[in-house]
Amino acid sequence: MSTLSNEQKLQIQQSRDTTVSTRRSVSPGLEEILYEAFPVLDHGFVRVVDYMGDDSAVVQAARVSYGRGTRQVSEDRGLINYLLRHWHTTPFEMAEIKLHVKMPIFVARQWIRHRMANVNEYSARYSILDREFYMPEPAQLAAQSVQNRQGRGEVVGPDEAKRILALLTEDSQRSYDHYLDMLNHDETGKPIDEGRQGLARELARMNLSLNFYTQWYWKTDLHNLMNFLRLRADKHAQYEIRVYADVILDILQKWVPLTFDAFREHRLEAATFSGEAVKALRRMLAGETLEQSDTAMSKREWDEFQAVLAKQ
Amino acid sequence: MSTLSNEQKLQIQQSRDTTVSTRRSVSPGLEEILYEAFPVLDHGFVRVVDYMGDDSAVVQAARVSYGRGTRQVSEDRGLINYLLRHWHTTPFEMAEIKLHVKMPIFVARQWIRHRMANVNEYSARYSILDREFYMPEPAQLAAQSVQNRQGRGEVVGPDEAKRILALLTEDSQRSYDHYLDMLNHDETGKPIDEGRQGLARELARMNLSLNFYTQWYWKTDLHNLMNFLRLRADKHAQYEIRVYADVILDILQKWVPLTFDAFREHRLEAATFSGEAVKALRRMLAGETLEQSDTAMSKREWDEFQAVLAKQ
Amino acid sequence: MSTLSNEQKLQIQQSRDTTVSTRRSVSPGLEEILYEAFPVLDHGFVRVVDYMGDDSAVVQAARVSYGRGTRQVSEDRGLINYLLRHWHTTPFEMAEIKLHVKMPIFVARQWIRHRMANVNEYSARYSILDREFYMPEPAQLAAQSVQNRQGRGEVVGPDEAKRILALLTEDSQRSYDHYLDMLNHDETGKPIDEGRQGLARELARMNLSLNFYTQWYWKTDLHNLMNFLRLRADKHAQYEIRVYADVILDILQKWVPLTFDAFREHRLEAATFSGEAVKALRRMLAGETLEQSDTAMSKREWDEFQAVLAKQ
Amino acid sequence: MSTLSNEQKLQIQQSRDTTVSTRRSVSPGLEEILYEAFPVLDHGFVRVVDYMGDDSAVVQAARVSYGRGTRQVSEDRGLINYLLRHWHTTPFEMAEIKLHVKMPIFVARQWIRHRMANVNEYSARYSILDREFYMPEPAQLAAQSVQNRQGRGEVVGPDEAKRILALLTEDSQRSYDHYLDMLNHDETGKPIDEGRQGLARELARMNLSLNFYTQWYWKTDLHNLMNFLRLRADKHAQYEIRVYADVILDILQKWVPLTFDAFREHRLEAATFSGEAVKALRRMLAGETLEQSDTAMSKREWDEFQAVLAKQ
Repeated sequence: MSTLSNEQKLQIQQSRDTTVSTRRSVSPGLEEILYEAFPVLDHGFVRVVDYMGDDSAVVQAARVSYGRGTRQVSEDRGLINYLLRHWHTTPFEMAEIKLHVKMPIFVARQWIRHRMANVNEYSARYSILDREFYMPEPAQLAAQSVQNRQGRGEVVGPDEAKRILALLTEDSQRSYDHYLDMLNHDETGKPIDEGRQGLARELARMNLSLNFYTQWYWKTDLHNLMNFLRLRADKHAQYEIRVYADVILDILQKWVPLTFDAFREHRLEAATFSGEAVKALRRMLAGETLEQSDTAMSKREWDEFQAVLAKQ
Repeated sequence: MSTLSNEQKLQIQQSRDTTVSTRRSVSPGLEEILYEAFPVLDHGFVRVVDYMGDDSAVVQAARVSYGRGTRQVSEDRGLINYLLRHWHTTPFEMAEIKLHVKMPIFVARQWIRHRMANVNEYSARYSILDREFYMPEPAQLAAQSVQNRQGRGEVVGPDEAKRILALLTEDSQRSYDHYLDMLNHDETGKPIDEGRQGLARELARMNLSLNFYTQWYWKTDLHNLMNFLRLRADKHAQYEIRVYADVILDILQKWVPLTFDAFREHRLEAATFSGEAVKALRRMLAGETLEQSDTAMSKREWDEFQAVLAKQ
Repeated sequence: MSTLSNEQKLQIQQSRDTTVSTRRSVSPGLEEILYEAFPVLDHGFVRVVDYMGDDSAVVQAARVSYGRGTRQVSEDRGLINYLLRHWHTTPFEMAEIKLHVKMPIFVARQWIRHRMANVNEYSARYSILDREFYMPEPAQLAAQSVQNRQGRGEVVGPDEAKRILALLTEDSQRSYDHYLDMLNHDETGKPIDEGRQGLARELARMNLSLNFYTQWYWKTDLHNLMNFLRLRADKHAQYEIRVYADVILDILQKWVPLTFDAFREHRLEAATFSGEAVKALRRMLAGETLEQSDTAMSKREWDEFQAVLAKQ
Repeated sequence: MSTLSNEQKLQIQQSRDTTVSTRRSVSPGLEEILYEAFPVLDHGFVRVVDYMGDDSAVVQAARVSYGRGTRQVSEDRGLINYLLRHWHTTPFEMAEIKLHVKMPIFVARQWIRHRMANVNEYSARYSILDREFYMPEPAQLAAQSVQNRQGRGEVVGPDEAKRILALLTEDSQRSYDHYLDMLNHDETGKPIDEGRQGLARELARMNLSLNFYTQWYWKTDLHNLMNFLRLRADKHAQYEIRVYADVILDILQKWVPLTFDAFREHRLEAATFSGEAVKALRRMLAGETLEQSDTAMSKREWDEFQAVLAKQ
């Protein structure tokens, strides 16, 4: 992946090549991909850098056991399904994962709102950022939605896309040029002008735009990871964070296959019906044909209700 | 303050003009300034929009009382001092404050790292941001520190300051011009070109730089507010967040005067000495004259130790 | 209520009698009941001792407004419904409530598992507990459920109830007698034996059983309060905590009537169907008659599904 | 250890005997003791059941590195010392540990107040507790302190100790006998009376006293673990929780030796002086001889100050 320098690739490879013996539980699926950088967007990635526990950590905690706590896979699967269906959260807090993520700053700003996580971000007070900024694919350049104030509508035409990408690219390049200029720092890390002191990094960075990439170590537990995924792998989430969530969904499946199945079944593909929606359902199952005006649902809720029932 | 529109000023004034009767404890100092916008930096502010409890909430909780829980001021003061000195945190969690803050995005990014708070931020997916960006005073344009990788050194000369401010201003203005252009949205809120759909807001915003202003409602308890202030009113904090912390320190003093005094005495003006530093102190008090090499302190720790002892 | 001493009643009355003027938002429903002790079980209670914000705090935060943020009640109601239906949590974190609760220790042990709250508990290291322990009503003395390992089955017969209550009462009285004896402390607070030092309170308390009453100040925000209520006002919750949740539900309705309605509709009376359950629903609505074996649901999930659809 | 059944010992041994290969970082010190039960009090224990990361996780996160992030031990040691001295907390949140702990209920009630942790407790609604309760050693049976309302004074005499232990033992045994009786459950797990239904477990447990043992899985990060240890390994903590903290301190040293050294130096053996205390220090170092009345410190603070300076 072009986003990684050769030195970074080497460090990752060295980490992957080192194996040691442990008495801990191991997730074979995660060991396989540990440290690997999965590319996201044009310069981003997600890497698993550490983890603790797997599906067995969930059942072990639910049973407060002295040994590994697991029984037959079918029993463990049943227990995990039961726990998730009945909103038992604490056993899922017993497994932990740590990711190294590189993403545009505006994505990081959404991501950080999930407070039940630990974060160490690369510091632009301390270090100098690279010339890396996000440029959307033309297929992602959509117009403002007219129905949904915080969503996208149709993709803009190719000429408009070209024009927008030119503006974005030009502004990003210039911002970065001026960033280096203020730092008195050329692309190779040398002073541009020996006789001039560079502006403090913590000030110069304010000229960079929100599409510049940042990176962090992000650590959370399985319960909070699923909360993150339920909201960010959702169709209402902004595309640029959803693609990260999608990659992490694949990681979840490799890490905790039983929990992943239960999560898909009881969260991702589940639907919540309001009290009025449940009443309507009962009448419909009894043979009535209903319209919105026959219920106490608002127009918007009725439409959402119909959409769930119609989806294939 | 020029940063507020007339409509906003009116809304604030109307809120201030409405008083009602309550059975709750009231902080006279905070009532006085409730809803008022205290200006910070060139376009920012801090406003208290709500609060719960005052010094009496701390002593009431510490005493788990049926009534107001307060006794004589001197007793309450003694209790609050004791609690803070001995790291009792839970009584200070019993008072709560809610602020409306407007600040540059790079300040918001540091602020949000304090996770024990509730936040509702103005959404640039949903709304269009104003043409408001931070331009430092020339006196704040400092060079990168050579001692401290994440600090500022000397102020840059007037010519360099002028050059930097010109770059920053020009880039910010252009970013915003292109932001409106992509949104197909002129300064008065009308479409620039009726025949063109604007780019989705969630995309266009990525062209704005980190000095643009955002705003949020931020709510936290007294204990976590003091944690925030201990770190952000500190001389190691970046100037642009420290000025917010300084304003909030004044608010703290008006809100909970006894707690404020204890906080200043036992946190802001306090010093923590390591085990080795305490040993050194004992020797010095016994008359020995010590140098760094007589102790197990590192050079850096020794210097910090000397600085605390020398400070006037 | 007999559980309060005359002095406590007086303190409560004095707090209720004091009204002052405030610029803050006020919840008329809560002001009405502020400080009042609502009895729960035989010696417990719930009292609201402070609060911050009401329904308007939710809409104000969602709109990041400069003024009160509210519009017409119907608009506010629609917004609150939308927020809750779509799992927006942060606006509900902007209102806060503080309760004084007295409850048996085994109830406190379940309650404390809700970590997103602030707690100051009456300290049995520091103070001496009263002779107050929970004795269930005979109608609550149920046998272990045979279907549900953590539930109750049928009520035990009157003779068995009498026998159990006698055992519980006798053991609780004796525990408390010995507690005082070890403390060398008679019922009036005087030493039993002047020549003997009492055992440390932090040790003597270990002889008390889990039905003894403790009390605390408990503060949380509206979002986390609803989480608490969703789990503890549920029929799967133990009766002895559910009665507290029921009292708090009434308090919720007085405090934030719009949010209460939305919470009842979209949480309490709502039902979540798994992916398989939604598929089954679609087939049933298309006219198919299904049995469990026609679906991928487990027996237990199928029964729960049927129960929701049948409930009147 | 007599507290473990043979089956439990076997499960622990089997877990210890299973080793697999991993790409993750490994803490040799923790691997050595993984799953082992360290006895505490008369029936309690602490076992490490899983962990993630070690000292290298701290430096790796502080450096947001692509590889292992560690350099020379002396550099890593310096960085860890610096981070801890300057209250940088997030890098220490990047390592995680999971313990299985068995402790008296009154200890569990103090422990759970540390909210930044994940807990799964053995459920007495679901299962039946064992006949295991804490009986203090005679040397721990201390009288109430007269100076400190929440502390212990002198050890009671041997006759009084004997009398107290007899009371405690008798009450605990009787409580447990009646618990089994109400459950209709004999010591071997069979019904006492086939014709009688036992009382629900969630009710019967209320007859047990606070010295009965419970157990849980408890997971936290290195930062929050150190917070726990700073408060609970302190001389003001109750003896019965301090002995757990002491065992965990040993575990900390095996797990993260560099962080342990820094923690001992900058937290356990450190002292915080108030603003007034620092001023007094400066005067004393300048040769003045001070008494309390020469300063603005309270009598109590002055005594604490003197105690720190005098300690050897």
